[in-house]
Amino acid sequence: MSRRRRHSRRRHSEDQKKEPLFKPLPGLRGGQYKPLSQEEVKQIHRASLAVLEQTGIEVMSSECREIFKDAGAHIDEDNNRVYISKAMVEHALASAPNEVMLCGRDPKYDMHLGGTRVYMGTGGAAVKVLDLDTGHPRPSTLADVAEIGRLVDVLDNIHFYLRACVARDVPSENLDLNTYYASLANTSKHVTGNCYAVQSVRDVVEMAGMIAGGGDKLKERPIISATICWTVSPLRFAPETVEVLTEVVRQDIPVFLSSAPQSGATSPAALAGTLVQINAEELSGVVYTQLVKPGAPIILGYVPSVSDMRTGNFVGGAPEFALMHAAVCQLGQFYQLPVYNSSGLTDSKIPDIQAGYEKGMTGLAAALAGANYIHHSAGFLESMMTVAYEQFVIDDDINGSIMRMVRGIEVNDSTLSVELIDEVCRGEGHYLGTQQSLQLMNSEYYYPHTGDRQRRGEWEEKGGLTMWEAARTQAKHILATHRPAPISPEVDAKIRERFTILL
Amino acid sequence: MSRRRRHSRRRHSEDQKKEPLFKPLPGLRGGQYKPLSQEEVKQIHRASLAVLEQTGIEVMSSECREIFKDAGAHIDEDNNRVYISKAMVEHALASAPNEVMLCGRDPKYDMHLGGTRVYMGTGGAAVKVLDLDTGHPRPSTLADVAEIGRLVDVLDNIHFYLRACVARDVPSENLDLNTYYASLANTSKHVTGNCYAVQSVRDVVEMAGMIAGGGDKLKERPIISATICWTVSPLRFAPETVEVLTEVVRQDIPVFLSSAPQSGATSPAALAGTLVQINAEELSGVVYTQLVKPGAPIILGYVPSVSDMRTGNFVGGAPEFALMHAAVCQLGQFYQLPVYNSSGLTDSKIPDIQAGYEKGMTGLAAALAGANYIHHSAGFLESMMTVAYEQFVIDDDINGSIMRMVRGIEVNDSTLSVELIDEVCRGEGHYLGTQQSLQLMNSEYYYPHTGDRQRRGEWEEKGGLTMWEAARTQAKHILATHRPAPISPEVDAKIRERFTILL
Repeated sequence: MSRRRRHSRRRHSEDQKKEPLFKPLPGLRGGQYKPLSQEEVKQIHRASLAVLEQTGIEVMSSECREIFKDAGAHIDEDNNRVYISKAMVEHALASAPNEVMLCGRDPKYDMHLGGTRVYMGTGGAAVKVLDLDTGHPRPSTLADVAEIGRLVDVLDNIHFYLRACVARDVPSENLDLNTYYASLANTSKHVTGNCYAVQSVRDVVEMAGMIAGGGDKLKERPIISATICWTVSPLRFAPETVEVLTEVVRQDIPVFLSSAPQSGATSPAALAGTLVQINAEELSGVVYTQLVKPGAPIILGYVPSVSDMRTGNFVGGAPEFALMHAAVCQLGQFYQLPVYNSSGLTDSKIPDIQAGYEKGMTGLAAALAGANYIHHSAGFLESMMTVAYEQFVIDDDINGSIMRMVRGIEVNDSTLSVELIDEVCRGEGHYLGTQQSLQLMNSEYYYPHTGDRQRRGEWEEKGGLTMWEAARTQAKHILATHRPAPISPEVDAKIRERFTILL
Repeated sequence: MSRRRRHSRRRHSEDQKKEPLFKPLPGLRGGQYKPLSQEEVKQIHRASLAVLEQTGIEVMSSECREIFKDAGAHIDEDNNRVYISKAMVEHALASAPNEVMLCGRDPKYDMHLGGTRVYMGTGGAAVKVLDLDTGHPRPSTLADVAEIGRLVDVLDNIHFYLRACVARDVPSENLDLNTYYASLANTSKHVTGNCYAVQSVRDVVEMAGMIAGGGDKLKERPIISATICWTVSPLRFAPETVEVLTEVVRQDIPVFLSSAPQSGATSPAALAGTLVQINAEELSGVVYTQLVKPGAPIILGYVPSVSDMRTGNFVGGAPEFALMHAAVCQLGQFYQLPVYNSSGLTDSKIPDIQAGYEKGMTGLAAALAGANYIHHSAGFLESMMTVAYEQFVIDDDINGSIMRMVRGIEVNDSTLSVELIDEVCRGEGHYLGTQQSLQLMNSEYYYPHTGDRQRRGEWEEKGGLTMWEAARTQAKHILATHRPAPISPEVDAKIRERFTILL
């Protein structure tokens, strides 16, 4: 061993202590994958402008239509059509903020949506849960919203909590507020929700203000946001939902402009055509919300979907789905506005190998494309119908692996290792004990918590479990042990006094 | 319904007949994913040149070393080191062909490696097979090499056959020839193999020539190629294997220069350092083979591998593995030489959800990066230890989905659908019966053959199978029914007369 080599060695244990285990950070930069050329992005943009100018959107007589009218949009009242000019779009794009901050109850979970920074989390509105004990599907409940929140709270690679299932045991008049409450009470990460009525927007904002320490504090540090699906594709504004959207914007709550046309059904079968239509829908939403309140914090909510055209069934695990969800990131980057999209859906009913590859591929595509807020990316099975506790654990490992890929390869004089290669080739001939190996072993590599890397013998000795089985044990362990940081008892008491809290 | 709309409609059945079901074509162009910047590619290139010039490679006294010496390489005979200058590398890069054609017995399976054209297939040297009946691992045999060939022959998204398991029941002196024979006899797709001795190269070439219709015909249409792992990382030429490599090159057989250092063990723990070292190894192979025969058809054989640094275990499903296998495509594109790499490995022992996401992610990364010959991408489990018949069926669906993503999104006036959107928005409000939907339903979408898209009720009625179970049935069905195009009986008789054929 050369003098230089000996000098560069350290004791194993000493070095291991120094470097914390690598955890992929939320907000790493994507953008390494670009399914469209820059010219194709512009073609889609121009086609969307043509659609908004020539075809327009359908808006019934309403406050919304008056707002468009006052702004100078051309209105065809007989046919309820509103035509949006290129100038109006450009004006709105200029006033919408390029970055939107979403906060956690704990500031360490704050997210800065924009650019190509990637965050992955939950989402959806499943109506069933695979029961953790029986393995069979049953209707989802408010307790599930809470319990899944606890899982999200502890899983590192799920960066935010958008309720993934519907509390079917809660009456509709209490649903929105109780869903937000159950989420906020069970995780310190950012909470996104949904409101189905103007009054519930006001209630939710009031409650969140109480938790945040006042309405002004909530505006400074929005611990909640809302996803509002205000369109009915193709290109129609949904009258009641638009009222909810208007209220959310007026209340200064960051809002996801969610639109989910299904190619071949509610948007063209050609993927490019679906992108044109959804982009026109998104731009109409940007124009509208910026008219309601210039500078309102909005996030483009592209959810282009796919139907299996042989059956009409919605399919979430399709390659065409992944392609479009990567492409929309390029649109958002072109407009310099944050993007909400989707990955992690599967058409399998159970956590089997199909669920794995569909989740891996759709997640990787969205993340490498630089999506800012990838919802649906934990917990889902059976397209958007079912969630499973163990699936959140599995998806956390999938997301960890994806985020490691988003981080990419560091290239600099040290990592290029020219001197180290020389030293090893002239010396011992292997890298096992080198300082670099000891230093990087915990920071350069992602180690799965549930994925298996044992040799077959060890794996068999421990029961030869599928990852599905191993994750079930993990999920039970978390639910048995993890207690999230609670809402302060005083605030909680006040919330319970003011509102009907069912949890 | 408008006149125009009615005019544009056709009868469902009529249109369905017109368009054949979409099958992703082999050789679609990747390159949409670039983990490295162009400057980083150059940094790695420059560092590799520095390694070759300053550190050099270890070559024992041999014909190979004489060849380097005659070409003017600086040799340190005392330390068995050969130093390769930048000029020698550039000279070799200029003489190596930018494209390499690999042929099938059936010309429809010909592959044109180069650029960013993507082909996915099998590979590896598993020593175990999951028995299709018992589900338990058992030693692999020559019959397995043949039977897997039959599966490959019929599965559309496996584009070539590199034997995936070792015929452990064949004595080593008969192994190479019999493995090639069992492969060639069972698929009309291109066959890659391995030779462990100079004589077996000569035998294999003679046999392949008989099948191709003569030695000249074999050179015109190489129905076989060889993968030769001539290095022992870091940067050592393996004396005996180099002799085999030399013979393959002299016989004009296309050769994959396979090198597989393991980061943290036989190459640096820093991913960038592993890329520098493997790239230096590859360049040394390019220089050597081009010295043996200028213009020899070679393929860069980058197989950068990862060890779990906590245990030293080889891991094939890691995100770092996927990252490096995408990065090496950029190196090949920089040199304008074809690239062989790897994906589709998993560290799971069974076709479970872990196997799914590890395969989906590694495969997608390699393919979107534009790898020309992705081996390992069907059949594998337990890193590189085990293959399973049903896994080939599953991986065919995974590869189909990946190739659909490689195809990307067509953007042109027709697919942008501006007129169609106008027509539908002013008319019926949905796209189900439009001419575009009927025309594109079979060409725009990939439909899995084994992946499940049924509604839960139907799926439960049919037994509620995992994809693993469904694939087992499919594999049994193929093996019971598929008869590949045979080698002509006359030629086969001559081969059996000339050689010891054990099948």
